[in-house]
Amino acid sequence: MRAEIITIGDELLYGQMEDSNSPFVAEKLTGLGLNVIFKTSVGDDITRIAEALETARSRVDVIIATGGLGPTSDDLTKKAIVKTFKRNLVFHPEILKNIEESFQKRGIPMPGVNQNQALIPQGAKALSNQWGVAPGISIEDEKILFFALPGVPVEMKWMLENEILPILKSKMTAGNTGAEHFILHRKLRTTGISESALFEKIEKLIDPKEELKIAFLPSYWGVDIRLTMESEEQAQAQAKIDIYEDKIREILDSFIYGTEEQTLEEVLGKLLVERKKTIAVAESCTGGLISARITNVSGSSQYFERGVITYSNAAKSELLKIPGEVIEKHGAVSDVVAVLMAEGVRKLAGTDLGLSATGIAGPAGGTPQKPVGLVYIGFAHENDSYAERFIFGQDRRSNRQRAAQAALNIVRLFLIK
Amino acid sequence: MRAEIITIGDELLYGQMEDSNSPFVAEKLTGLGLNVIFKTSVGDDITRIAEALETARSRVDVIIATGGLGPTSDDLTKKAIVKTFKRNLVFHPEILKNIEESFQKRGIPMPGVNQNQALIPQGAKALSNQWGVAPGISIEDEKILFFALPGVPVEMKWMLENEILPILKSKMTAGNTGAEHFILHRKLRTTGISESALFEKIEKLIDPKEELKIAFLPSYWGVDIRLTMESEEQAQAQAKIDIYEDKIREILDSFIYGTEEQTLEEVLGKLLVERKKTIAVAESCTGGLISARITNVSGSSQYFERGVITYSNAAKSELLKIPGEVIEKHGAVSDVVAVLMAEGVRKLAGTDLGLSATGIAGPAGGTPQKPVGLVYIGFAHENDSYAERFIFGQDRRSNRQRAAQAALNIVRLFLIK
Repeated sequence: MRAEIITIGDELLYGQMEDSNSPFVAEKLTGLGLNVIFKTSVGDDITRIAEALETARSRVDVIIATGGLGPTSDDLTKKAIVKTFKRNLVFHPEILKNIEESFQKRGIPMPGVNQNQALIPQGAKALSNQWGVAPGISIEDEKILFFALPGVPVEMKWMLENEILPILKSKMTAGNTGAEHFILHRKLRTTGISESALFEKIEKLIDPKEELKIAFLPSYWGVDIRLTMESEEQAQAQAKIDIYEDKIREILDSFIYGTEEQTLEEVLGKLLVERKKTIAVAESCTGGLISARITNVSGSSQYFERGVITYSNAAKSELLKIPGEVIEKHGAVSDVVAVLMAEGVRKLAGTDLGLSATGIAGPAGGTPQKPVGLVYIGFAHENDSYAERFIFGQDRRSNRQRAAQAALNIVRLFLIK
Repeated sequence: MRAEIITIGDELLYGQMEDSNSPFVAEKLTGLGLNVIFKTSVGDDITRIAEALETARSRVDVIIATGGLGPTSDDLTKKAIVKTFKRNLVFHPEILKNIEESFQKRGIPMPGVNQNQALIPQGAKALSNQWGVAPGISIEDEKILFFALPGVPVEMKWMLENEILPILKSKMTAGNTGAEHFILHRKLRTTGISESALFEKIEKLIDPKEELKIAFLPSYWGVDIRLTMESEEQAQAQAKIDIYEDKIREILDSFIYGTEEQTLEEVLGKLLVERKKTIAVAESCTGGLISARITNVSGSSQYFERGVITYSNAAKSELLKIPGEVIEKHGAVSDVVAVLMAEGVRKLAGTDLGLSATGIAGPAGGTPQKPVGLVYIGFAHENDSYAERFIFGQDRRSNRQRAAQAALNIVRLFLIK
């Protein structure tokens, strides 16, 4: 089954934002074994949306369109569907009821324009929307399976996974779609090692005769390694990719913290629960990011007791009992203060573990001795406390994110030791 | 002049990376006054690349293609050009010489495959590449201006800016492609009001006869309003868009917190400095996000004294002096506790302002009385303290982000009063 993704919205053509929807859709469809052969973006223009739908209809079996289903006048997808599929819009009172109810729940009166969202092309099915009011649309005819979803990422993602993928799955296992071709991906997530160091470590595994492709995807949080294996036989592809994963894990060991979309805070959360450890955090340069990362995880109250953001020196002295003279002598950005912050917050909160960060996030505040990007991560547990020194880069946002990631990783490495 | 951007590469269709090239190209072309009407992504497949080129040729005046010009066997753009434009590849010894020299400079022997990069379609011009070896390609015929660039971002960007934009500029001012045409954008950022409510408020300003387009771009943080004005005269477009901005500002007033890429924390930071106010934050459900947002801004130590993340009830009692009985009676998620948290942290830190958030981020922990998505934001200043109640949605990440945004906005609204 060949598929095309169509993303709709002027903003995609003005270039001021990246399109995060189509990679998500592409990954899910590819994961199912569909062959995504084109992606098209088109602006808020009925004629051109219809043209894009027409072109896609002529070359693929499945179309997923996102965007342009909102209630405002620039949301034109449904009118283009009317044009391409020659179907009128029909009012569905039960959809209007759902929309009204969802406004009621939020205690907001429903604006009149939202009534338009209860119009659905004739013969189309409405797809339910867990996170918003605009229903999705699905149309099936002799030529095509067509789906239209809202452009709001959280709505689009839920509907794709819960409404569309099950339909596609059942169509594919029905088996009348010709020869199968599997593309298998696996993502191994690393942190604390550079892209080139990773490459040098696993370079010898790259065999040009094999069907395995290895890609390195660097971000603030580390480098993801993407393995791609193509095969006509799913079990075989699976077996081969497993062997490669084992080899890579043997070489990289604890540099790998997770797979696929797992986050470091999820992995850390599981470890803390397993080891029955509680944690508290004292932050300076990261300004709350470390705690925010830890509490991203539902259920984190099991192990996260409290955090303090001791931005001022007074806060460091008052909350963490770090003597003013010590801060004076070593500077707030120092290994000594990092250790005292971790010890101090551990004691204040009465937790098993204490974690801290102090550094110079930039762009201002650097000196030759203590340049922008210098960060100390402090860590305290029952038997020991210590600080690690990092020098990141010049960019404030990146320095803070990388410091938070390094801090979480220090706790992970301690727990898996 | 209408343009289409074509990005080439299997990785764009597997979906594990965002395409950062096409937004860059789109922004540059739009800035020049071109009208980008389609973007297409296609994999490493000669027939389909040719099909995409053919389709684009039939509907636009300018095509910019990126990717697929490297020496390896999966780089097929030139073969597709041969197919679409019916031109053979011609060997250019002077290009080979350049390529050889660039390898010499790097002290690496030139691999044999790189010889292919000296082949250029007949009648095409080679575009020089400051950062790599693959030359770009430009073809002009009676129908189309066509450019192909490498997909490596640094190479693509340099060539677009230095080789292609000057050509397009001269074509456009030569005046033989029709009148000049300017597209001006302006972004007004709102928060605390829904897309449909915004629409109803400014609907009457939307005059279909005018060249002004209004788009609503919703996100966790609010709804951005993008104004787009097309005109043949730049000064006129500017004047018109200014008038619309004034009208919209009059209607929306303090719902607008900033313009273009300004963040709420930047706006708030400026206000705090101007008004000489300091602030401290006590967080529960937002887990550090509010403080992290405030400290995103360089120089925030001028006004941000400290933050506490009182995740446990013990932390709320110990750090903020909220009696256990009060928490017991009203629940940690209540307006009473939100107010006491804001007052408590203001007192603890000795700041002018105290800000707090307590709520049920989800997905677990909701009850019929206190559903997932319920958040109280507390605020305390010299003369008063109060809490505001919000009901967001079901998604943990979105609830936390929206709560942090709402909290910052309450402080902003107080300061501009």
